[in-house]
Amino acid sequence: MAILYGNAVVGQSGGPSSAINATLSGVIRGCLAANDTIGTLYGMQNGLEGLLAERLVNLRERIKGEDDLRCLETTPAAALGSCRLKLPNPLKERSIFDKVRAVFEKYNIRYFFYIGGNDSMDAVAKLTAYFREVEYEVRIIGVPKTIDNDLVGTDHAPGFPSAAKYVATTVKEIVRDCAVYTVPAVTVIEIMGRDAGWLATAAALPSLTGGGPDYIFLPERPFSPSTFLELLRKALATHPTVVVAVSEGCLFENGHYVGEGQQNGLSDVFGHRYLSGTGKVLEMLVKQELKCKARSIELSLPQRCAAHIASLTDIRESVAIGRCAVKEALAGAYGCMVGFKRTSNSPYTVEIVTVPVDTVANEVRFVPSSFINEAGNGVTEECIAYLRPLIEGEVKPVYEYGMPKHFVL
Amino acid sequence: MAILYGNAVVGQSGGPSSAINATLSGVIRGCLAANDTIGTLYGMQNGLEGLLAERLVNLRERIKGEDDLRCLETTPAAALGSCRLKLPNPLKERSIFDKVRAVFEKYNIRYFFYIGGNDSMDAVAKLTAYFREVEYEVRIIGVPKTIDNDLVGTDHAPGFPSAAKYVATTVKEIVRDCAVYTVPAVTVIEIMGRDAGWLATAAALPSLTGGGPDYIFLPERPFSPSTFLELLRKALATHPTVVVAVSEGCLFENGHYVGEGQQNGLSDVFGHRYLSGTGKVLEMLVKQELKCKARSIELSLPQRCAAHIASLTDIRESVAIGRCAVKEALAGAYGCMVGFKRTSNSPYTVEIVTVPVDTVANEVRFVPSSFINEAGNGVTEECIAYLRPLIEGEVKPVYEYGMPKHFVL
Repeated sequence: MAILYGNAVVGQSGGPSSAINATLSGVIRGCLAANDTIGTLYGMQNGLEGLLAERLVNLRERIKGEDDLRCLETTPAAALGSCRLKLPNPLKERSIFDKVRAVFEKYNIRYFFYIGGNDSMDAVAKLTAYFREVEYEVRIIGVPKTIDNDLVGTDHAPGFPSAAKYVATTVKEIVRDCAVYTVPAVTVIEIMGRDAGWLATAAALPSLTGGGPDYIFLPERPFSPSTFLELLRKALATHPTVVVAVSEGCLFENGHYVGEGQQNGLSDVFGHRYLSGTGKVLEMLVKQELKCKARSIELSLPQRCAAHIASLTDIRESVAIGRCAVKEALAGAYGCMVGFKRTSNSPYTVEIVTVPVDTVANEVRFVPSSFINEAGNGVTEECIAYLRPLIEGEVKPVYEYGMPKHFVL
Repeated sequence: MAILYGNAVVGQSGGPSSAINATLSGVIRGCLAANDTIGTLYGMQNGLEGLLAERLVNLRERIKGEDDLRCLETTPAAALGSCRLKLPNPLKERSIFDKVRAVFEKYNIRYFFYIGGNDSMDAVAKLTAYFREVEYEVRIIGVPKTIDNDLVGTDHAPGFPSAAKYVATTVKEIVRDCAVYTVPAVTVIEIMGRDAGWLATAAALPSLTGGGPDYIFLPERPFSPSTFLELLRKALATHPTVVVAVSEGCLFENGHYVGEGQQNGLSDVFGHRYLSGTGKVLEMLVKQELKCKARSIELSLPQRCAAHIASLTDIRESVAIGRCAVKEALAGAYGCMVGFKRTSNSPYTVEIVTVPVDTVANEVRFVPSSFINEAGNGVTEECIAYLRPLIEGEVKPVYEYGMPKHFVL
């Protein structure tokens, strides 16, 4: 493989996470180390949206050194900004791709790193197809990121372990809080996860020390209101405070989302329906049918931005996978996504591999059956064994004024 | 003052906090150090409710040493359990007080420490009045605790600084998260505070590093929907993502709670009306009137139980005030609450003082006018100077399986 000299551009796309900036740091570290091959590293502001508008920042100039990189690694959300731009089919609508090409030519871009989830991998696949066809050599690589953990082609997605650590810690704290009263009460904790219940499985982790929720419901296992109420009655008969963790995307057996009644009817540009109120609907159901105290708690945005409690394992891996994306590109890879392959649970070891991005784009990886208990209201030992190593280790952000310091570009 | 030999009992009451167990630890440390005077230290399970049922645990036996105490200090919620028992007027209904007296006599209780908020101080005042009248010598001391910070007689209440640190950190993280997109959007963050807006003022702290919300609304300053919308329009004209922090107890100018429309109509045993949905109501208002993306986030229970991000200042002070309560009781104090008197903002210094509990019970301390800006949509420098030292310092809980370890009695 011939050495490809030129500049690089990196972007972040989709929903933010606590680790996406660690991945950005990894890409920056990788490019800085390859300064004999990669000239300038540009950051696209707000992903492809910014690339098209030529809103590019020179990251070599903006990142002053190791302190900045370390601070970036514990800063939540996307330092470069994000977007939710859906690229059209390159065979049908070429103008947007031609514009990308014009920018690439103008800035001599030969390396393109896009950090994101399913939708971003779709962009990587389409850009790869286009540039292959027009015979412009650019090594386009997708770097995974999603707290939803629903990307195929990787053992887990960077960002998920930190979100899982937040969920595990917060559920543990809420369970402790709920335990102080003797009055029968049901607390429903709503956890992010539109299609797949990965993040809600992390609610099982506090059970390792005897402080977990009574039940966990995932989108993978629809349930009926009567089953739900029956389980709660059973739990309330043995202890007064019952805690239930549910994915926002949970379904009733009739195929409707639990939160559907609370929906605002809107959908985003990708056609995903906005869900909210799954916990609220179940809270109302409990109040109405069991006549006991009930409340719902939506863990909401902190799941993806509570970087102060990020998983050290996640942050380290996110930096490593960013670096590796650059290394793979330098070695000739393109049209692929870097991902993790787990080689052992205990001791926990992963390898970084590449997978063709068109096998990843627009696929959803669900929680496997072997991770869900038979009754569909909790997880298995196998699931716990998968999750456990991911949330190990604590980051040590720099604090200023009693709050974690963030790196702002 | 003659030395009073006998046993002691300690209880926790009202809503949990991240620091109430640190105060419990302080009381335990104080009693252990006074083992020439105080024989057994009992813990009442679920506060007065448990005392009346003689559900008492011997804390000397249950706490094995320094490791247990340290773990207790970073464990959220009330390790002894809590209750919301409202004592009647002792002049009118004596039976419950006679029952307390019978328990005191049976266990030779001469020291009574009650850790709680306004309602708990009401119990301390009533018990003091009763035992003074029946001439049973027992030194009844209230130890403050409330994340609401609305107790009079103390510069701030233990538990508030940790809740404030959680709010400041989380608002900072959410502001960062919101900043990644370019689409105009309003995010409303709902913060606990039924009557007083103390906790919402902490949302101003991220502004110290340029990442705070656009506006903060407190119950102390009712506003009109039109003013609210006008401010948002102004903010949206200068930047796409607008963040507003509101107290759950915010009022419209017509005197109605913003969240009233969303209320379930219930009130608790103290006659407080349950509020919820303040953020949701404002989200709806924005969607309807400004036709832009809007969402609301209720910070909910983690505000009072996210002990992993507790303020080290708070935890240290909470231990100290618990110890001091014992010291004061040994020196003859009774019928009082221990509290903080701030002697300097910079360097931050506090003294622990005692105040007569009947000047504290059933009073509410509001955010003073000098802490709120003229427009009533933010806080002043004086407020920031008050808050800043409280959230300084980070606790270092022991982690097991990637989650903070909790002490469970």
